[in-house]
Amino acid sequence: MPENESHERTTVSVIGLGQLGTRLAQAFLAAGYATTVWNRTAAKTDALVAQGAVRAATAEAALSASPLIVVCLPDYTTVRDLLEPMAESLRGQVLANLTSGTPEEAVQAAGWVAGHGGDYLDGAAMSGTRLVGRPEALFVFSGSQEAFALHRAVLAGLGNCVHLGADPALAPIYDTALFGLAWGALAGFYHAVALVGAAGVDPGSFAAVATEHMPFVASLMADHARQVKDGRFPDDDGTVEVHRAAMEHLVRTSRTQGIGTDVPELFKALLERAMAEGHGLSGIASVIETITKGGRNA
Amino acid sequence: MPENESHERTTVSVIGLGQLGTRLAQAFLAAGYATTVWNRTAAKTDALVAQGAVRAATAEAALSASPLIVVCLPDYTTVRDLLEPMAESLRGQVLANLTSGTPEEAVQAAGWVAGHGGDYLDGAAMSGTRLVGRPEALFVFSGSQEAFALHRAVLAGLGNCVHLGADPALAPIYDTALFGLAWGALAGFYHAVALVGAAGVDPGSFAAVATEHMPFVASLMADHARQVKDGRFPDDDGTVEVHRAAMEHLVRTSRTQGIGTDVPELFKALLERAMAEGHGLSGIASVIETITKGGRNA
Ligand SMILES: NC(=O)c1ccc[n+]([C@@H]2O[C@H](COP(=O)([O-])OP(=O)(O)OC[C@H]3O[C@@H](n4cnc5c(N)ncnc54)[C@H](OP(=O)(O)O)[C@@H]3O)[C@@H](O)[C@H]2O)c1
Ligand SMILES: NC(=O)c1ccc[n+]([C@@H]2O[C@H](COP(=O)([O-])OP(=O)(O)OC[C@H]3O[C@@H](n4cnc5c(N)ncnc54)[C@H](OP(=O)(O)O)[C@@H]3O)[C@@H](O)[C@H]2O)c1
Repeated sequence: MPENESHERTTVSVIGLGQLGTRLAQAFLAAGYATTVWNRTAAKTDALVAQGAVRAATAEAALSASPLIVVCLPDYTTVRDLLEPMAESLRGQVLANLTSGTPEEAVQAAGWVAGHGGDYLDGAAMSGTRLVGRPEALFVFSGSQEAFALHRAVLAGLGNCVHLGADPALAPIYDTALFGLAWGALAGFYHAVALVGAAGVDPGSFAAVATEHMPFVASLMADHARQVKDGRFPDDDGTVEVHRAAMEHLVRTSRTQGIGTDVPELFKALLERAMAEGHGLSGIASVIETITKGGRNA
Repeated sequence: MPENESHERTTVSVIGLGQLGTRLAQAFLAAGYATTVWNRTAAKTDALVAQGAVRAATAEAALSASPLIVVCLPDYTTVRDLLEPMAESLRGQVLANLTSGTPEEAVQAAGWVAGHGGDYLDGAAMSGTRLVGRPEALFVFSGSQEAFALHRAVLAGLGNCVHLGADPALAPIYDTALFGLAWGALAGFYHAVALVGAAGVDPGSFAAVATEHMPFVASLMADHARQVKDGRFPDDDGTVEVHRAAMEHLVRTSRTQGIGTDVPELFKALLERAMAEGHGLSGIASVIETITKGGRNA
């Protein structure tokens, strides 16, 4: 038997060592957890074994080696095709699936694992590969609350792990929604960098100040979420009309500086639609109603 | 002479007690600084005097009462019209102008104050009125570095005060750009809340997780700013093509859930424009070049 290739009991097994899976295995090792690894192309395990991982000869051996199995493959069909022949080894185990997929696929996978006597967690890596293992790397999980509680400390080796609820569909739902949120912030940031850049401001200096502004933006999110829930939009953070006027100023300034205006034009259009729906004197969070209704007029 | 209306020397004077000015004066008082106040409609000083402020009988008295004068009026013309007749009292004083205006107005105001022997800080309150006095309330200042250094501790009573540089134009430039950044994050958040809402997720639960995701987004901002500066866009956070495909998924999911798709459609259009410009395999920060060039094709 080759060195480090054994049926040794470990804390966690990682199946699928692509760009993301490799980083997951590295993070478990860095956090000090005994880690078994398996990959279709065995050569990709070499660097991990050098870092202390145990190489499993087969996927089935990896499945049996640890109470927690993290799987990270291109799609759910690949996961199912790979694990189906050895599904009996899932009994009493926890499968945490970090493969990207749809809410429906997550629900199906949970049912399939439960049918074989295992516990299922659907997961989504929200912060790419680069930050895996750091506290700002967010991982969301949904499905078995017990499984999450049992393996919480090990999963924390990956970053900031949040359990969203028992419905396995929640992780993919949040995955899609948080991607949109991140892009909103990035698009706003990209536009701002282009704008200050036209005035000769260094992008790094702007980014430093932008970072200081995010706690305020996060506090608005919390407040505005409460407003949607209550269905009341007080104007504490300015009315839709006042923000529309300020956005008009941003559009004009952007045009004067010779940069694109699509980003602020979109926000202005959303604010104008909110005004048309009678929200001119409401707080800006009323735009959420405009977006929610948006599909009906399309 | 009425109680508390005197020529007493104080640490800071606030001229203009509208929605914002009142909160500024309250924050200075709460931080323990002796504060003189003046407002055209004197009745608006009553509550502040009850909290310990000193009422100035005239704007000129307020100007002379403290080494630091904070002015907060509707626009720069109002500031100039009010202060012009008493401009000699600016000698040796610092005027911190928190009135919203343009970069050109800030430069003019700085010149005018300097012409009367005073020191000028242009300022912008980035976080509305509600959070004034709290650490997440960002205030940006530009202009005299010495004036900022001298009064830094007092200004810190307002929140997180950042000095951007000697050019007075910087505060209004950042003001406009940070407004766009905040709106990007909010539009992304509003879309996300509408999306998860359609799946029955509570907005407050989503906001809590969204807040956990912001440190990652802020770390992208810092990295992407460095990339623009270097003019190189590595694909560490995914290529433009990969993000376009994920955005297409967000658009489709939004449509399926019956909500508006304008927000992700805009991001998709930006990514597609970056692809058309040859950035398909570049990192997503290359979108900044697309926005910068945007004005030329319009
Ligand atoms: N990369 C990211 O930044 C990122 C971020 C968030 C989420 N994700 C998600 O994570 C999942 C994996 O992404 P990735 O970027 O790590 O993918 P990747 O780099 O393309 O790696 C794919 C992995 O799947 C294995 N694989 C493919 N087909 C297989 C099969 N039929 N049987 C067994 N193994 C097979 C590959 O093995 P071989 O080495 O033998 O080819 C490889 O280990 C995807 O769902 C992705 O959407 C990725
Ligand atoms: N409110 C916010 O959330 C916010 C946030 C960021 C920036 N700002 C900026 O802060 C500045 C002030 O805004 P605000 O909301 O505080 O305004 P506001 O509530 O409308 O108050 C305006 C103030 O200006 C005074 N004023 C108006 N015309 C005057 C004149 N000719 N002579 C002397 N005083 C005069 C008013 O005095 P009277 O009481 O006698 O009318 C009042 O104190 C604006 O530039 C605004 O863009 C406001």
